[in-house]
Amino acid sequence: MVPPELDEGLPLERIKDFSLEELLGMAIKAEIGARQFYESLAERVEIGELKEKVSWLAGEEKKHEELLRKIYADFFPGKEMVFPKEHIGPELQPVARKLDKVEDVIDLIRWAMKAEEIAAKFYAELENMVEDERKKRLMRYLSDMEWGHYYNLKAEYELLLDWAMYDQMMHVGP
Amino acid sequence: MVPPELDEGLPLERIKDFSLEELLGMAIKAEIGARQFYESLAERVEIGELKEKVSWLAGEEKKHEELLRKIYADFFPGKEMVFPKEHIGPELQPVARKLDKVEDVIDLIRWAMKAEEIAAKFYAELENMVEDERKKRLMRYLSDMEWGHYYNLKAEYELLLDWAMYDQMMHVGP
Repeated sequence: MVPPELDEGLPLERIKDFSLEELLGMAIKAEIGARQFYESLAERVEIGELKEKVSWLAGEEKKHEELLRKIYADFFPGKEMVFPKEHIGPELQPVARKLDKVEDVIDLIRWAMKAEEIAAKFYAELENMVEDERKKRLMRYLSDMEWGHYYNLKAEYELLLDWAMYDQMMHVGP
Repeated sequence: MVPPELDEGLPLERIKDFSLEELLGMAIKAEIGARQFYESLAERVEIGELKEKVSWLAGEEKKHEELLRKIYADFFPGKEMVFPKEHIGPELQPVARKLDKVEDVIDLIRWAMKAEEIAAKFYAELENMVEDERKKRLMRYLSDMEWGHYYNLKAEYELLLDWAMYDQMMHVGP
């Protein structure tokens, strides 16, 4: 089931229908959406370890947004940013409801994983689209970071599926 | 060149020569080594963004060590831990020298990536060795987390290779 925080978006193949300018705008919009999603999730989740992790992810997405704005300004100096209404892959929205059961959280983490996976592939595609070696490097950086997020979320997801164990094992330390 | 902080260790295939008890001991030792490596690297590195990242990694490895100690206690209750002197894959040691050039840092990050990659594969092998579904899940968790670290380091590594750009782009924010 697709939760209300999520719009599935266009498939990755549609990337070729947009200009680099539009794709950078999309990427910035997606980073903002992801940050707001993680921030709101951190507020609503009561599992300490997970709260900490999603707060960390929110901070990471904020840094990516700033980096992408620099890249945009470098590509299109002085130009006002274009934010297409379409987006490639799931676009995360703030969580505005109460999360009653661990299953609600599991559902959202699964969609966040999907969004991170598409983001990683999206940046890898942008790497092919840009010609300058430095810009390629920056797209590789962003793609690798999103893979990092994907695996980090996947780890939590696996453990959340066995809630009793998560509860027992993740209260590590004193 | 292999830096002094690193002992290349045994290849992953040698995993079959050890008991589960020994392998868990090895894993705990490796997590401790990795934490000390990241802590010492954080002290010696002057690149703000990277300092923050390796400090974060140090904290993560600390949590893994605690989790593995719980798993060990659960597998072998009341038994004193065995720490084999051998280890699978690169064993990271504290950085005790001054890091003069960015190349020194790049070298260490590359080895840390290698260590994280082997650790991810090591835990995936342990997942096959344990029978209990919960223990498999925990090994999968650890393996995914290490992949997360691997990609996070890979992202930094890629950008560090072009130091001038790293310096320019990573001073994001005000």
